[in-house]
Amino acid sequence: MKKIEHIGIAVKDLEAAKKTYRSLLGVDSYKDELVESEAVMTSFFRTGPNKIELLAATDESSAIHKYLEKNREGIHHIAFAVDNILEEIKRLEKEGFRLLNKEPKKGADNKLICFVHPKDSNGVLIELCQDIPPEN
Amino acid sequence: MKKIEHIGIAVKDLEAAKKTYRSLLGVDSYKDELVESEAVMTSFFRTGPNKIELLAATDESSAIHKYLEKNREGIHHIAFAVDNILEEIKRLEKEGFRLLNKEPKKGADNKLICFVHPKDSNGVLIELCQDIPPEN
Repeated sequence: MKKIEHIGIAVKDLEAAKKTYRSLLGVDSYKDELVESEAVMTSFFRTGPNKIELLAATDESSAIHKYLEKNREGIHHIAFAVDNILEEIKRLEKEGFRLLNKEPKKGADNKLICFVHPKDSNGVLIELCQDIPPEN
Repeated sequence: MKKIEHIGIAVKDLEAAKKTYRSLLGVDSYKDELVESEAVMTSFFRTGPNKIELLAATDESSAIHKYLEKNREGIHHIAFAVDNILEEIKRLEKEGFRLLNKEPKKGADNKLICFVHPKDSNGVLIELCQDIPPEN
């Protein structure tokens, strides 16, 4: 794990949350990106070497919609940057962690991602993310 | 806000959580520190420019004890590094954020800290932290 790549925050109203986080962080969101496969609209802010990712559901099929039915708005996951996601998955499985998806999938911001089961990390949903190399 | 300084994770059993996060992050905790004023025992891990802080209550007066009575284990707060906490408090108050403590207090890891009301930041408890200068 090289660093915290971003923290994902589940919100109901993306535009209102963007205003809040612009005021809080003192910078504008640098991009909005739709992740169609997950039915999630995202908005990203930089804070030094890290990012804040706001997450809003685009319809009821979205994991964020389901999350917000059970939970209040708040931190949804922590993403750690890794150099090689396949090796990291192997390492974590050897250590006894369960992965929610064993095959990395494409996430926002040009990343390959996978999630560790939050029951294996004290209730924290952990995402691993690796930059997708330019040749892909 | 210069970067995410650390993420604080509330746990019930600090020793068990230290083993989990050692396996997850692939590094040992670099220190444990008791914050007597808060009745919290902490343990810190480095991940590149960021840290993970595990937080366990030392008695029932602890905010972490009260947190875990109402919530499951999980992410308790995000801390952002700032250069000048007093200026940042002023800036955030002007932006309409409520601070849980207006006078910075001494936290773990040689920091001055204060917290933003989580109702003003989509349910996320935000900590500001500034290194305590050597001359203090």
